[in-house]
Amino acid sequence: MKPKLTLKQIARELDVAVSTVSKALRDSDEISVDTRQKIKAFAKLYNYKPNNIALSLKNRKTMTIGVIIPEIIHHFFTTVISGIEQVANKRGYNVIICLSNNSFDKEVINMEMLANGSTDGFILSVAKETQQKGDYQHLTEVINQGMPIVLFDRVVDEIECDKVIINDREGARKAVQHLVDIGCKKIAIITTVDYVSVGKLRTVGYRQALEKNSIPIDENLILKIEDVENSDEEINRFLFRNDVDGIFAVNEQFSVSAIRGLNNRGLKVPEDVSVVGFTNGELSKRFIPSLTTVSQHGAQMGAKAANLLIDKLENAVAGEEKYTTEIIETSLIERESTLLNLPLKI
Amino acid sequence: MKPKLTLKQIARELDVAVSTVSKALRDSDEISVDTRQKIKAFAKLYNYKPNNIALSLKNRKTMTIGVIIPEIIHHFFTTVISGIEQVANKRGYNVIICLSNNSFDKEVINMEMLANGSTDGFILSVAKETQQKGDYQHLTEVINQGMPIVLFDRVVDEIECDKVIINDREGARKAVQHLVDIGCKKIAIITTVDYVSVGKLRTVGYRQALEKNSIPIDENLILKIEDVENSDEEINRFLFRNDVDGIFAVNEQFSVSAIRGLNNRGLKVPEDVSVVGFTNGELSKRFIPSLTTVSQHGAQMGAKAANLLIDKLENAVAGEEKYTTEIIETSLIERESTLLNLPLKI
Repeated sequence: MKPKLTLKQIARELDVAVSTVSKALRDSDEISVDTRQKIKAFAKLYNYKPNNIALSLKNRKTMTIGVIIPEIIHHFFTTVISGIEQVANKRGYNVIICLSNNSFDKEVINMEMLANGSTDGFILSVAKETQQKGDYQHLTEVINQGMPIVLFDRVVDEIECDKVIINDREGARKAVQHLVDIGCKKIAIITTVDYVSVGKLRTVGYRQALEKNSIPIDENLILKIEDVENSDEEINRFLFRNDVDGIFAVNEQFSVSAIRGLNNRGLKVPEDVSVVGFTNGELSKRFIPSLTTVSQHGAQMGAKAANLLIDKLENAVAGEEKYTTEIIETSLIERESTLLNLPLKI
Repeated sequence: MKPKLTLKQIARELDVAVSTVSKALRDSDEISVDTRQKIKAFAKLYNYKPNNIALSLKNRKTMTIGVIIPEIIHHFFTTVISGIEQVANKRGYNVIICLSNNSFDKEVINMEMLANGSTDGFILSVAKETQQKGDYQHLTEVINQGMPIVLFDRVVDEIECDKVIINDREGARKAVQHLVDIGCKKIAIITTVDYVSVGKLRTVGYRQALEKNSIPIDENLILKIEDVENSDEEINRFLFRNDVDGIFAVNEQFSVSAIRGLNNRGLKVPEDVSVVGFTNGELSKRFIPSLTTVSQHGAQMGAKAANLLIDKLENAVAGEEKYTTEIIETSLIERESTLLNLPLKI
């Protein structure tokens, strides 16, 4: 069998980025005319067809679901996978997982590889870089060729397909309302930069909850972290700079960094400062103090996504294109990191 | 394209386990003659060939590596994957991940699916149930057909192939020696049941370190956990029953369970009891107190496994079968959970 030419091979051969090849092949203005001509000539010479990824799918059932996620270090994605696995296995499907490592190129390469005969459909959470670029052509192409996609968590408004999201805004509102209810007045948020959709939505929820409780928003108390993996030092400095009595952190890692930062300042959780996190993972359950957190019900999210995808695969009717967006409600899990404030303040 | 009949489909059709089908097709005495005949007749009727999984591999390069791991909840496996990804991407290979969820059937199904044209070779850590059964036919078949496998961490002595292991015994000895060095006299181990090879080896290392230091082994201080996911209560009871001044826990989860159990008894870490864990994951780094632990260098392990596999794929010479077993040395990372003992006891 002669191997098929892939986007990645063209990119390597011509020493350009995968995204450049992808854009050139669909005649994007972003790529110079010269480069476009060169890439198209090369693709033609080697008989590459940009639309060949899902060829002859109609007649082929792999009974396999492809899952592409940005990372597996965070507990949330591992719980989603467990939910997908559970439903898929029950309904007779295998699951293949690929990581984009938050890279646009890897996401495109993985989709191309899996769409090329390995899977019947996709469950996908979009890479950070893809959201930043706003380039979703690889998703559109797969959908146009009749291969269903279910997006979850980090979804894309521009793409029409089934989606499973959590109510991030509402989750954040619950977290901040809880801090207000136990008596906090100076509530900080530790969040991500705005182009990460979930971080942005949780920040919106934080603002809404404060407004609703007539607490003025202090922009100094909003910390947006760019480099998530090395956030400790930044959080530490932020906590030395600002006096707070409540912290809402948009993920597990930020929550425990915050607690350590507070300890460094001689402050205790929950005696001096209350902390609410997001994601109900191992770290939140096992940390001392255990963390009050917003549970996203990742397993439920994965199960819902798998059911939506398999329903589509098994009831596919040509021409019929109804898409749903399922919203998984969050819930607040109260634990030790917010227990004591109210009694102390009365 | 007509879909190929898989072991899984035969199993479902005849309402038997995948392992039964697999055994029947290779005429195992463990399966009754009747069942064997039935399964073989069915397989013949539908033209299933037990040895068809790696057909025509010689002429097909997918440039993809299949990784099968028991679980992704534990940080160790996610670090191994990051090491595999890094090397594979650098050398031009994609990575596909499947989970066995520690099930023998799922491991067999995943291997069959991936061997069927999706990957060039495997990197694999064997499922707990597979180790328990001691049935490695699915590995042997794939190897016999010329598809290379690299086993890591949970390896199998009976299978000849490249392996990457850590020196579990030596890692455990380092952990226990550290506890002895800081003055602990009554050192407990919280470990897994013996059929999990790494748990067994770490327990051996614990015994050796105590013997070397002429500390008598007290079998009451050896706790073997069967149900890893629900170990908290058992650990708690164990710590109320036994007075210890040092604990060696063979994974992250057991370490933090132990610290909470000690706190429940009014004991502090490291002031009253020192704790050393195994695996240098998020939990160990971020816990308060941060955990002294044995680092397995998961990323290094993954990188080594990927290099071994790709070397084999790219230099495959018929007839030449040289296998190596690479040992990744562990190192002890000293943190807060063992800091204070010595000064207090002097």
